Amino acid sequence: MQYPEPIARLIDSYMKLPGIGEKSATRLAFYTLGMSDADVDNFAKSLRAVKRDLHYCSVCGNITEDDPCPICKDKTRDQSRVLVVERSRDIMAMERMKEYHGLYHVLHGTISPSEGTGPQDINLESLLKRLEAHKEIQEVIVATNASLDGETTAQYLAHLIKPAGIKVTRLAHGLSAGADIDYTDEVTLFRAVQGRTEM
Amino acid sequence: MQYPEPIARLIDSYMKLPGIGEKSATRLAFYTLGMSDADVDNFAKSLRAVKRDLHYCSVCGNITEDDPCPICKDKTRDQSRVLVVERSRDIMAMERMKEYHGLYHVLHGTISPSEGTGPQDINLESLLKRLEAHKEIQEVIVATNASLDGETTAQYLAHLIKPAGIKVTRLAHGLSAGADIDYTDEVTLFRAVQGRTEM
Repeated sequence: MQYPEPIARLIDSYMKLPGIGEKSATRLAFYTLGMSDADVDNFAKSLRAVKRDLHYCSVCGNITEDDPCPICKDKTRDQSRVLVVERSRDIMAMERMKEYHGLYHVLHGTISPSEGTGPQDINLESLLKRLEAHKEIQEVIVATNASLDGETTAQYLAHLIKPAGIKVTRLAHGLSAGADIDYTDEVTLFRAVQGRTEM
Repeated sequence: MQYPEPIARLIDSYMKLPGIGEKSATRLAFYTLGMSDADVDNFAKSLRAVKRDLHYCSVCGNITEDDPCPICKDKTRDQSRVLVVERSRDIMAMERMKEYHGLYHVLHGTISPSEGTGPQDINLESLLKRLEAHKEIQEVIVATNASLDGETTAQYLAHLIKPAGIKVTRLAHGLSAGADIDYTDEVTLFRAVQGRTEM
Protein backbone atom coordinates (compact mmCIF):
# COMPACT_ATOMS: atom_id res chain seq x y z
CA MET A 1 0.00 0.00 0.00
CA GLN A 2 1.25 3.41 -0.99
CA TYR A 3 0.50 6.75 0.63
CA PRO A 4 -2.62 8.36 -0.85
CA GLU A 5 -1.63 10.26 -3.98
CA PRO A 6 -2.03 13.81 -2.54
CA ILE A 7 0.21 12.98 0.43
CA ALA A 8 2.80 11.33 -1.82
CA ARG A 9 2.93 14.42 -4.01
CA LEU A 10 3.33 16.73 -1.02
CA ILE A 11 6.12 14.52 0.35
CA ASP A 12 7.86 14.85 -3.03
CA SER A 13 7.55 18.63 -2.85
CA TYR A 14 8.93 18.83 0.69
CA MET A 15 11.83 16.60 -0.37
CA LYS A 16 12.85 19.20 -2.95
CA LEU A 17 13.79 21.53 -0.08
CA PRO A 18 17.40 21.48 1.12
CA GLY A 19 18.16 19.32 4.14
CA ILE A 20 14.79 17.57 4.09
CA GLY A 21 14.91 13.84 3.42
CA GLU A 22 12.09 11.34 2.99
CA LYS A 23 11.45 10.87 6.72
CA SER A 24 11.25 14.59 7.48
CA ALA A 25 9.17 15.22 4.36
CA THR A 26 6.69 12.54 5.44
CA ARG A 27 6.47 14.03 8.91
CA LEU A 28 5.90 17.51 7.46
CA ALA A 29 3.28 16.25 5.00
CA PHE A 30 1.26 14.58 7.75
CA TYR A 31 1.67 17.65 9.91
CA THR A 32 0.33 19.78 7.05
CA LEU A 33 -2.75 17.59 6.99
CA GLY A 34 -3.49 18.67 10.54
CA MET A 35 -2.88 22.39 9.97
CA SER A 36 -5.78 24.83 9.67
CA ASP A 37 -7.17 25.47 6.19
CA ALA A 38 -6.19 29.13 6.51
CA ASP A 39 -2.56 28.35 7.36
CA VAL A 40 -2.18 25.92 4.47
CA ASP A 41 -3.86 28.34 2.12
CA ASN A 42 -1.52 31.15 3.21
CA PHE A 43 1.44 28.83 2.78
CA ALA A 44 0.42 27.99 -0.80
CA LYS A 45 -0.24 31.66 -1.54
CA SER A 46 3.08 32.87 -0.17
CA LEU A 47 4.96 30.20 -2.13
CA ARG A 48 3.42 31.47 -5.35
CA ALA A 49 3.88 35.11 -4.31
CA VAL A 50 7.66 34.90 -3.87
CA LYS A 51 8.02 33.60 -7.39
CA ARG A 52 5.52 36.05 -8.86
CA ASP A 53 6.23 39.28 -6.95
CA LEU A 54 9.96 39.16 -6.32
CA HIS A 55 12.62 39.95 -8.88
CA TYR A 56 16.29 40.81 -8.93
CA CYS A 57 17.14 44.51 -8.81
CA SER A 58 18.56 45.45 -12.21
CA VAL A 59 21.18 47.64 -10.52
CA CYS A 60 22.54 45.61 -7.60
CA GLY A 61 21.00 42.14 -8.00
CA ASN A 62 19.23 42.21 -4.62
CA ILE A 63 15.78 40.60 -4.47
CA THR A 64 13.05 43.17 -4.51
CA GLU A 65 9.42 43.84 -5.29
CA ASP A 66 10.25 47.11 -7.07
CA ASP A 67 13.04 47.73 -9.55
CA PRO A 68 15.42 49.35 -8.67
CA CYS A 69 15.31 48.12 -5.09
CA PRO A 70 14.65 50.48 -2.14
CA ILE A 71 18.37 50.63 -1.28
CA CYS A 72 19.46 51.59 -4.80
CA LYS A 73 16.69 54.19 -4.96
CA ASP A 74 17.61 55.73 -1.59
CA LYS A 75 19.67 58.81 -2.47
CA THR A 76 20.41 59.52 1.21
CA ARG A 77 22.70 56.48 1.28
CA ASP A 78 26.43 56.90 0.73
CA GLN A 79 26.78 56.59 -3.07
CA SER A 80 30.57 56.30 -2.90
CA ARG A 81 30.71 52.79 -1.41
CA VAL A 82 29.53 49.44 -2.75
CA LEU A 83 29.61 46.39 -0.51
CA VAL A 84 29.75 43.13 -2.47
CA VAL A 85 28.03 40.04 -1.04
CA GLU A 86 27.44 36.50 -2.25
CA ARG A 87 23.70 36.36 -1.62
CA SER A 88 20.72 38.65 -1.04
CA ARG A 89 20.27 37.45 2.51
CA ASP A 90 23.78 38.70 3.32
CA ILE A 91 22.43 42.20 2.68
CA MET A 92 19.77 41.63 5.33
CA ALA A 93 22.48 40.64 7.82
CA MET A 94 24.45 43.80 7.03
CA GLU A 95 21.34 45.96 7.34
CA ARG A 96 20.50 44.41 10.70
CA MET A 97 23.91 45.65 11.87
CA LYS A 98 22.67 49.21 11.11
CA GLU A 99 26.22 50.58 10.74
CA TYR A 100 26.68 50.47 6.97
CA HIS A 101 24.98 53.14 4.90
CA GLY A 102 26.44 52.62 1.44
CA LEU A 103 25.19 50.58 -1.52
CA TYR A 104 25.36 46.85 -2.26
CA HIS A 105 26.01 44.41 -5.06
CA VAL A 106 24.95 40.76 -5.00
CA LEU A 107 27.10 38.22 -6.86
CA HIS A 108 24.59 35.33 -6.53
CA GLY A 109 27.42 32.90 -5.99
CA THR A 110 31.19 32.66 -5.95
CA ILE A 111 34.00 31.79 -8.26
CA SER A 112 34.57 28.17 -7.29
CA PRO A 113 37.22 26.13 -9.09
CA SER A 114 36.07 23.06 -7.16
CA GLU A 115 32.48 23.44 -8.37
CA GLY A 116 33.51 24.61 -11.81
CA THR A 117 31.90 28.06 -11.60
CA GLY A 118 33.90 30.89 -13.09
CA PRO A 119 33.60 34.70 -13.25
CA GLN A 120 31.02 34.42 -16.04
CA ASP A 121 28.67 32.45 -13.75
CA ILE A 122 28.23 35.20 -11.17
CA ASN A 123 26.69 38.67 -11.29
CA LEU A 124 30.05 40.34 -11.93
CA GLU A 125 29.79 42.05 -15.29
CA SER A 126 27.01 44.30 -14.02
CA LEU A 127 29.29 45.35 -11.13
CA LEU A 128 32.09 46.34 -13.52
CA LYS A 129 29.66 48.27 -15.71
CA ARG A 130 28.26 49.94 -12.62
CA LEU A 131 31.72 51.04 -11.48
CA GLU A 132 32.39 52.43 -14.94
CA ALA A 133 29.10 54.30 -15.16
CA HIS A 134 29.21 55.68 -11.61
CA LYS A 135 32.51 57.40 -11.11
CA GLU A 136 31.33 58.52 -7.66
CA ILE A 137 32.01 54.99 -6.37
CA GLN A 138 35.35 55.20 -4.59
CA GLU A 139 35.42 52.01 -2.57
CA VAL A 140 34.37 48.42 -3.12
CA ILE A 141 34.08 46.47 0.14
CA VAL A 142 34.31 42.75 -0.53
CA ALA A 143 32.13 40.88 1.98
CA THR A 144 32.19 37.37 0.55
CA ASN A 145 32.17 34.50 3.04
CA ALA A 146 35.37 33.55 4.84
CA SER A 147 35.46 30.27 2.90
CA LEU A 148 37.89 29.10 0.24
CA ASP A 149 35.51 30.10 -2.57
CA GLY A 150 34.75 33.40 -0.87
CA GLU A 151 38.47 34.16 -0.64
CA THR A 152 39.08 33.19 -4.26
CA THR A 153 36.28 35.49 -5.36
CA ALA A 154 37.60 38.34 -3.20
CA GLN A 155 41.09 38.01 -4.68
CA TYR A 156 39.69 37.95 -8.19
CA LEU A 157 37.60 41.07 -7.57
CA ALA A 158 40.55 42.98 -6.13
CA HIS A 159 42.71 41.97 -9.09
CA LEU A 160 40.03 43.21 -11.49
CA ILE A 161 38.93 46.43 -9.82
CA LYS A 162 42.09 47.92 -8.30
CA PRO A 163 43.65 48.81 -11.68
CA ALA A 164 40.70 51.18 -12.25
CA GLY A 165 41.92 53.23 -9.31
CA ILE A 166 39.07 52.17 -7.03
CA LYS A 167 39.89 51.24 -3.44
CA VAL A 168 39.09 47.58 -2.72
CA THR A 169 38.78 46.52 0.92
CA ARG A 170 37.69 43.32 2.64
CA LEU A 171 36.08 42.49 5.96
CA ALA A 172 38.39 41.82 8.91
CA HIS A 173 39.03 38.22 9.92
CA GLY A 174 39.51 37.29 13.54
CA LEU A 175 37.74 36.20 16.70
CA SER A 176 33.96 36.36 16.71
CA ALA A 177 32.26 38.23 19.53
CA GLY A 178 32.39 36.25 22.77
CA ALA A 179 34.80 33.72 21.27
CA ASP A 180 36.82 31.50 23.57
CA ILE A 181 40.50 31.31 22.50
CA ASP A 182 40.59 27.72 23.68
CA TYR A 183 37.78 26.72 21.31
CA THR A 184 38.87 28.78 18.32
CA ASP A 185 40.27 26.92 15.31
CA GLU A 186 43.84 27.52 14.19
CA VAL A 187 43.00 29.31 10.95
CA THR A 188 40.87 31.86 12.79
CA LEU A 189 43.54 32.30 15.48
CA PHE A 190 46.23 32.77 12.85
CA ARG A 191 44.15 35.44 11.13
CA ALA A 192 43.38 37.12 14.43
CA VAL A 193 47.09 37.32 15.24
CA GLN A 194 47.98 38.48 11.73
CA GLY A 195 45.33 41.17 11.84
CA ARG A 196 46.07 42.35 15.37
CA THR A 197 45.58 46.08 15.95
CA GLU A 198 47.41 48.46 18.27
CA MET A 199 45.67 49.35 21.53
CA MET B 1 15.43 47.17 6.56
CA GLN B 2 13.00 44.29 6.59
CA TYR B 3 12.79 41.38 4.20
CA PRO B 4 10.54 42.13 1.23
CA GLU B 5 6.95 41.38 2.21
CA PRO B 6 6.53 38.19 0.09
CA ILE B 7 9.68 36.65 1.59
CA ALA B 8 8.63 37.63 5.12
CA ARG B 9 5.25 35.97 4.63
CA LEU B 10 6.83 32.78 3.29
CA ILE B 11 9.24 32.70 6.24
CA ASP B 12 6.21 32.94 8.54
CA SER B 13 4.58 30.01 6.75
CA TYR B 14 7.69 27.83 6.95
CA MET B 15 7.98 28.66 10.65
CA LYS B 16 4.55 27.12 11.24
CA LEU B 17 6.05 23.71 10.40
CA PRO B 18 7.36 21.60 13.27
CA GLY B 19 11.08 21.79 13.98
CA ILE B 20 11.64 24.77 11.69
CA GLY B 21 12.82 27.93 13.43
CA GLU B 22 13.44 31.39 12.02
CA LYS B 23 16.91 30.62 10.64
CA SER B 24 15.82 27.47 8.81
CA ALA B 25 12.65 29.15 7.58
CA THR B 26 14.69 32.02 6.14
CA ARG B 27 17.04 29.59 4.44
CA LEU B 28 14.09 27.66 2.98
CA ALA B 29 12.36 30.84 1.81
CA PHE B 30 15.44 32.04 -0.06
CA TYR B 31 15.93 28.57 -1.47
CA THR B 32 12.32 28.63 -2.70
CA LEU B 33 13.11 31.83 -4.56
CA GLY B 34 15.70 29.93 -6.57
CA MET B 35 13.48 26.91 -7.33
CA SER B 36 11.90 26.45 -10.74
CA ASP B 37 8.44 27.95 -11.30
CA ALA B 38 7.08 24.46 -11.93
CA ASP B 39 8.42 23.05 -8.66
CA VAL B 40 7.03 25.92 -6.60
CA ASP B 41 3.71 25.70 -8.40
CA ASN B 42 3.51 21.95 -7.72
CA PHE B 43 4.39 22.57 -4.09
CA ALA B 44 1.57 25.11 -3.71
CA LYS B 45 -0.84 22.80 -5.52
CA SER B 46 0.01 19.76 -3.43
CA LEU B 47 -0.36 21.75 -0.21
CA ARG B 48 -3.89 22.70 -1.19
CA ALA B 49 -4.65 19.21 -2.48
CA VAL B 50 -3.92 17.43 0.81
CA LYS B 51 -6.40 19.66 2.57
CA ARG B 52 -8.99 19.46 -0.20
CA ASP B 53 -8.77 15.83 -1.34
CA LEU B 54 -7.92 13.92 1.82
CA HIS B 55 -10.37 13.04 4.56
CA TYR B 56 -10.57 10.64 7.45
CA CYS B 57 -12.14 7.27 6.73
CA SER B 58 -15.49 7.17 8.53
CA VAL B 59 -14.86 3.55 9.52
CA CYS B 60 -11.25 3.38 10.71
CA GLY B 61 -10.06 7.01 10.82
CA ASN B 62 -7.24 6.48 8.30
CA ILE B 63 -6.58 9.32 5.87
CA THR B 64 -8.00 8.57 2.47
CA GLU B 65 -9.23 10.07 -0.77
CA ASP B 66 -12.28 7.77 -0.83
CA ASP B 67 -14.57 6.93 2.06
CA PRO B 68 -14.42 4.19 3.28
CA CYS B 69 -10.69 3.82 2.69
CA PRO B 70 -9.25 1.12 0.38
CA ILE B 71 -8.32 -1.09 3.36
CA CYS B 72 -11.80 -0.99 4.91
CA LYS B 73 -13.34 -1.69 1.50
CA ASP B 74 -11.05 -4.64 0.79
CA LYS B 75 -13.14 -7.72 1.64
CA THR B 76 -10.18 -10.07 1.02
CA ARG B 77 -8.56 -8.76 4.20
CA ASP B 78 -9.00 -10.62 7.47
CA GLN B 79 -12.17 -9.08 8.93
CA SER B 80 -11.64 -10.68 12.33
CA ARG B 81 -8.66 -8.56 13.42
CA VAL B 82 -8.34 -4.83 14.05
CA LEU B 83 -4.92 -3.33 14.69
CA VAL B 84 -5.10 -0.05 16.62
CA VAL B 85 -2.49 2.65 15.91
CA GLU B 86 -1.93 6.20 17.10
CA ARG B 87 -1.55 7.83 13.70
CA SER B 88 -2.32 7.20 10.02
CA ARG B 89 1.34 6.97 9.13
CA ASP B 90 1.70 4.01 11.50
CA ILE B 91 -0.61 2.12 9.12
CA MET B 92 1.82 2.79 6.28
CA ALA B 93 4.65 1.33 8.38
CA MET B 94 2.59 -1.79 9.09
CA GLU B 95 1.65 -2.16 5.43
CA ARG B 96 5.28 -1.85 4.37
CA MET B 97 5.95 -4.90 6.58
CA LYS B 98 3.52 -6.83 4.30
CA GLU B 99 2.78 -9.44 7.00
CA TYR B 100 -0.45 -8.09 8.48
CA HIS B 101 -3.65 -8.60 6.51
CA GLY B 102 -6.35 -7.52 8.94
CA LEU B 103 -8.06 -4.16 9.44
CA TYR B 104 -6.95 -1.00 11.25
CA HIS B 105 -8.22 1.71 13.54
CA VAL B 106 -6.51 5.08 14.01
CA LEU B 107 -6.81 6.81 17.39
CA HIS B 108 -5.32 10.13 16.22
CA GLY B 109 -3.52 10.53 19.51
CA THR B 110 -3.11 8.92 22.90
CA ILE B 111 -4.55 9.19 26.34
CA SER B 112 -1.95 11.40 27.99
CA PRO B 113 -2.40 12.48 31.60
CA SER B 114 0.69 14.70 31.25
CA GLU B 115 -0.80 16.56 28.28
CA GLY B 116 -4.30 16.49 29.67
CA THR B 117 -5.84 14.44 26.86
CA GLY B 118 -8.37 11.83 27.92
CA PRO B 119 -10.35 9.02 26.23
CA GLN B 120 -12.83 11.56 24.83
CA ASP B 121 -10.04 13.33 22.91
CA ILE B 122 -9.09 10.35 20.75
CA ASN B 123 -10.94 8.37 18.08
CA LEU B 124 -12.08 5.72 20.56
CA GLU B 125 -15.86 5.80 20.58
CA SER B 126 -15.99 4.83 16.91
CA LEU B 127 -13.80 1.80 17.72
CA LEU B 128 -16.18 0.65 20.45
CA LYS B 129 -19.18 1.11 18.15
CA ARG B 130 -17.34 -0.76 15.43
CA LEU B 131 -16.63 -3.71 17.73
CA GLU B 132 -20.29 -3.77 18.74
CA ALA B 133 -21.58 -3.62 15.16
CA HIS B 134 -19.10 -6.15 13.75
CA LYS B 135 -19.26 -9.26 15.85
CA GLU B 136 -16.82 -10.94 13.44
CA ILE B 137 -13.99 -8.97 15.06
CA GLN B 138 -12.31 -11.41 17.42
CA GLU B 139 -9.01 -9.71 18.18
CA VAL B 140 -7.87 -6.14 18.80
CA ILE B 141 -4.11 -5.74 18.41
CA VAL B 142 -2.92 -2.65 20.24
CA ALA B 143 0.03 -1.12 18.36
CA THR B 144 0.43 2.18 20.18
CA ASN B 145 3.97 3.49 20.58
CA ALA B 146 6.22 2.02 23.28
CA SER B 147 6.07 5.33 25.17
CA LEU B 148 4.44 6.15 28.48
CA ASP B 149 1.35 7.58 26.78
CA GLY B 150 1.23 4.67 24.35
CA GLU B 151 1.32 2.23 27.27
CA THR B 152 -1.37 4.12 29.17
CA THR B 153 -3.60 4.05 26.13
CA ALA B 154 -2.96 0.34 25.58
CA GLN B 155 -3.89 -0.47 29.18
CA TYR B 156 -7.04 1.61 28.94
CA LEU B 157 -8.10 -0.11 25.72
CA ALA B 158 -7.55 -3.58 27.19
CA HIS B 159 -9.53 -2.64 30.28
CA LEU B 160 -12.40 -1.41 28.10
CA ILE B 161 -12.53 -4.10 25.42
CA LYS B 162 -11.68 -7.37 27.20
CA PRO B 163 -14.98 -7.49 29.15
CA ALA B 164 -16.79 -7.74 25.79
CA GLY B 165 -15.08 -11.10 25.26
CA ILE B 166 -12.78 -9.80 22.55
CA LYS B 167 -9.13 -10.85 22.65
CA VAL B 168 -6.81 -7.86 23.18
CA THR B 169 -3.13 -8.30 22.31
CA ARG B 170 -0.20 -5.93 22.12
CA LEU B 171 3.02 -5.81 20.12
CA ALA B 172 6.07 -7.53 21.60
CA HIS B 173 8.71 -5.39 23.28
CA GLY B 174 12.37 -6.30 23.06
CA LEU B 175 15.54 -5.87 21.06
CA SER B 176 15.23 -4.22 17.67
CA ALA B 177 16.70 -6.02 14.66
CA GLY B 178 20.49 -5.80 14.66
CA ALA B 179 20.54 -4.34 18.17
CA ASP B 180 23.74 -4.45 20.18
CA ILE B 181 23.12 -5.59 23.78
CA ASP B 182 25.88 -3.28 24.92
CA TYR B 183 24.10 -0.23 23.49
CA THR B 184 20.56 -1.20 24.47
CA ASP B 185 18.90 0.82 27.24
CA GLU B 186 17.86 -0.87 30.47
CA VAL B 187 14.12 -0.62 29.92
CA THR B 188 14.38 -2.37 26.56
CA LEU B 189 16.69 -5.03 28.00
CA PHE B 190 14.33 -5.60 30.91
CA ARG B 191 11.41 -6.07 28.53
CA ALA B 192 13.46 -8.35 26.28
CA VAL B 193 14.31 -10.57 29.26
CA GLN B 194 10.73 -10.50 30.55
CA GLY B 195 9.37 -11.44 27.15
CA ARG B 196 11.96 -14.13 26.39
CA THR B 197 10.65 -17.08 24.36
CA GLU B 198 11.66 -20.73 24.42
CA MET B 199 13.98 -21.93 21.67
